[in-house]
Order: sequence, then structure tokens, then C-alpha cells
Amino acid sequence: LPVHRQNFPRPLSLPASLAVFGPGLIGGSILLACARLFPEIKLRAWSRKFPALEKVQAGLGDEVFVSTDAAEVAQEATGLIFCTPVEFMEDLAREIAPTLGEARWLTDAGSVKGDLVRRLEDILGSRYVGAHPMAGSEKSGFEHARADLFTGSVCLLTPTASTSPEAADAVAEFWRGLGCDILFCEPHRHDELVARVSHLPHVVAAALAQIVPGEALPLAGSGFRDSTRIAMGDAAMWAGILLENREAVLSALQEMEGQLQIFTTALREQSRSVLQKELLSAARQRRQLS
Amino acid sequence: LPVHRQNFPRPLSLPASLAVFGPGLIGGSILLACARLFPEIKLRAWSRKFPALEKVQAGLGDEVFVSTDAAEVAQEATGLIFCTPVEFMEDLAREIAPTLGEARWLTDAGSVKGDLVRRLEDILGSRYVGAHPMAGSEKSGFEHARADLFTGSVCLLTPTASTSPEAADAVAEFWRGLGCDILFCEPHRHDELVARVSHLPHVVAAALAQIVPGEALPLAGSGFRDSTRIAMGDAAMWAGILLENREAVLSALQEMEGQLQIFTTALREQSRSVLQKELLSAARQRRQLS
Repeated sequence: LPVHRQNFPRPLSLPASLAVFGPGLIGGSILLACARLFPEIKLRAWSRKFPALEKVQAGLGDEVFVSTDAAEVAQEATGLIFCTPVEFMEDLAREIAPTLGEARWLTDAGSVKGDLVRRLEDILGSRYVGAHPMAGSEKSGFEHARADLFTGSVCLLTPTASTSPEAADAVAEFWRGLGCDILFCEPHRHDELVARVSHLPHVVAAALAQIVPGEALPLAGSGFRDSTRIAMGDAAMWAGILLENREAVLSALQEMEGQLQIFTTALREQSRSVLQKELLSAARQRRQLS
Repeated sequence: LPVHRQNFPRPLSLPASLAVFGPGLIGGSILLACARLFPEIKLRAWSRKFPALEKVQAGLGDEVFVSTDAAEVAQEATGLIFCTPVEFMEDLAREIAPTLGEARWLTDAGSVKGDLVRRLEDILGSRYVGAHPMAGSEKSGFEHARADLFTGSVCLLTPTASTSPEAADAVAEFWRGLGCDILFCEPHRHDELVARVSHLPHVVAAALAQIVPGEALPLAGSGFRDSTRIAMGDAAMWAGILLENREAVLSALQEMEGQLQIFTTALREQSRSVLQKELLSAARQRRQLS
């Protein structure tokens, strides 16, 4: 299995100063969690837009150093996390790369890893450790951030042969400190797996929501609501994620169409046994989750 | 719009004696709700299997008359509800049709209505009023029944030109008494709408659950859990529902495949604008629900 769970016998070592780039739902939740759990960490936040930083200061007080100048925020930080949309991370990395004197490690919260990890490693070097916290919701923005967003969630880390083992350890301990269960995965395999467990479900939920006639909405029960909830996610952000993980999502879509074709054929041929077998295998697979 | 909402100025008129055929999740919840809300109603329950009736008596006491003889349960009942899988309803109707002397109305809780309503009307006459309470969960059986299952849910009624207006009123009042919001819909249009809002989402959830590799399950977040929850439903029951509503489900599946094709093409062509437009239209449609 390319996904490994790891225990952490060593005590948590925390960064003296943590810089969060993009204090939205994920980045904001990291700041809130650190402020609550680790008040000794000095917090720094960067956003391209000043109003987003005003929200951070309103929520966390003046002790957070904020700036729209990424290099200024990166300076002095010993731990750095990119929480912007994935498509902006490479530019951001180039911008801060010259001012990383103090950095012990860098990580990110992007939901795509394969090529991104390689590109960020090229810019940031062995201190960068790719991460993907599987937490969040259909909401976005600092106003929905929560200190307990990561509690009990899974965070995938994608260290490579070029990653510094010390950085990988420290990054794992940091995410674990926020409440995450840590799993390790090869970056491209990560993309294939999340294409099936996250990106494809998003496309499918969107398609389901789109083809429902408006007059049918009053009939929507909890089943429809649950199965389409993620379709309310931020459209621009998800367009970026899908494009970034394009090949794995296309392959997952193809597999999905094949599986739907099995149902179509069984219905056309009125084959109760095939329908029942397929539904049973789905139920068994899904019941492995709580 | 074929779906109409109706207010009920008249007071609730209740059956003196209510017979529930198939006391599973839905039928059992009707029994529990009546026992709590309308203790004056005499309850009767039929199941093909005696152990199911023992559960009913364990849950509701000896005041419920139970029998595996459908005609015996139908006799003396003034309101009758079929809660078995849809495929058994026609045979059940034939079995009890000769003993309906006392019946003021009959209804059902089947999730397919079109041809079924016509066939049940042929057997049961103008006192039968098709119904589909949009309540339930992926669970089944009396052990999951709850007195408040229907509170705040929608119940679709499908009276036709042959339905007795008195029976339609009484059935609407009964379901409303259980906590349902009542909507009216033509039976075949009902099937087209629920194919899109309920049956297609079930097939899609099953397909999503099936194509996820086992090693990806530890990565499943709340998005995947929500969007595949209904895949845990009873496979045999759902095979029956899909077959019963075969044509409408096939047409919904075709529409779904067309919509997935739009996403596939946009991804192949790396068209951010199309992806964003489609995701935005999905989010807007879905946000009409809470």
C-alpha cells in the first residue's frame, strides 16, 4: 500500500514563528488552532488583499503580524504554510524563496500534489514537505475558519527522496499537533487517490445538482442534500483544483462513466441480479467507513 | 408546475383503525408516530414474517393487532397503508381487496408511482391514493423506526381523475398529521422527478463508492462520506425501486452522462471558463436548498 500510517513517539517540536499564506478557511483555521493550542508560537499572516488580513486581526488580535508583502511575512518565520489556491503557490514560492533564512520547514495545504510538489521542491529545496489536510467544507473564507477544523481529520504528507527527514518529521508533528491523523503517500499516487475520493465526487455532485429540475427541489430529502452538498463549494477554487489534477480526474471520470454504464445496461436488460450485486458491492465498500 | 403545495384549513380526521402492511423503517415509524400522537387510533400490522411482528409488539406492546394474514389485518381497518417494497404491493392489494368493507382510504409509501398507481387503482378503486413520503435513511427495519421520522419531510400525493376527493383529503390529512408537508403531483411526473432527486443520486453514490480503491478509504473526508452515504441502503430494496422506475431512471442516467461529458470535455480542453460556469450553475442550483 502506498499509504502508510505512522506513530510519533517523539514529543512535538513547534516552530517559534509560523507564517500562514492565505488565511481562508484552511489557513484561518490553522491560525485559530495555533492561537488556542500553542500560544507560544508567534503568528504571521499574508494575503494578497488587505481586507482578508483585517478579518484575521479582528479574529485574533494585533499579536498576529500581517502584511500584503509575502517576503516580509516569510522573513523571520521558522515554519511556513501555503494555504492559497494551488495555482498561486508556485509564484508565491518564487517570491519568498530569497528570504527563507530562518525557515526550518515549509508545507502547504493544497489538494493536488504530483507536479506541484516537484515544482515547489525545485524552488524551495529539501525543507519543503507537501501536505494535504483532508478537512474543510463547502464553505470558504476566514469567517468560517474554526480552531477545531482539523480535529480527527486525515492529513496526507508527500515527502520525496529529496525531502529532508528533519523537515518531514517536523511538518508531520505540526499537522499532528493540529489534531490530524498523518498518512504518507507518493505525490502522484496521492493525486490518483484524491481524484477518486474528493475531486470526482465534486464533479458528480455538481452534475447531479445541475440536472435536477427546479420543480423537483421541494422533493429533495436528506439523501439528495447529502449527496450534492459539496456542489456548493467555491466554483473558482474548484475549477483550479480540477485543472491542476486534470489527468487523474479525467481517468476517474472515465472509470465513473464505465460504472454508470454497468447500471445502465443492467436496467435496460432488467437484470435484477446484476443491479443487486452492484448495489451490494457499493454498500459493502461504503460500510468500511463509518 | 406539476407540483402543488396545499394548505389544510379543515381539522384532522383520523381513521378509527389503521393497518400498516410492512412495518419496516417507514411502516414502523408510522406506527410509532400514531402511537405517540394519536393514541385513539387502533393499530394493526401485517408482515409476511412473524419475527418482524414480534419486533413491533416488543416496541409497541400488545395493543397492536398483528398477523401474518393480510386479509385478517385489512378487515376492520378504516385506513390502510402499504409500506412493503413496491414490487409486492400489487399482490398484496389483490389479497386484501375482497375484505375492504370498512376501509375509508388506502395509501402507500412506495417511492415509484406511475404504473403502480394505475395498477393499484384497478384493484382497489377510488379509495386508493398514491403517496411517497420523502423520508427515510440508508437504514432499514423496524429497529431504526422513529416516531419523528416524518417531521418536516415532504410527502408527495398522486391522486388521479379516478381518485375519490374524500379519500384524497383524508389521506393528505393523515400524512400531514404525521408531520409531512404535502405536495401533489401527477404519478408519471412524480417518477421523472424522483428519478432525478432520489434514484439517480442512489446509483451515482453506488458508482462513486465502487470505484474508490480500498487504499483511498482512509482519505475519505466528510465530502466523500456525505456524497456516498445513501450507497449503504438496502441493495435488494433499491434494485426493486430502480427496476420499478426503470424508464425514468434510464433517462436520468443519460442526462447525467451528458453532464459529466461536459466536464470531461472542459477538462480535456483545459477550459477554466467552462468549468467555472458549470460549477457555478451547480452551486446556485444547490444553494436553493438549505
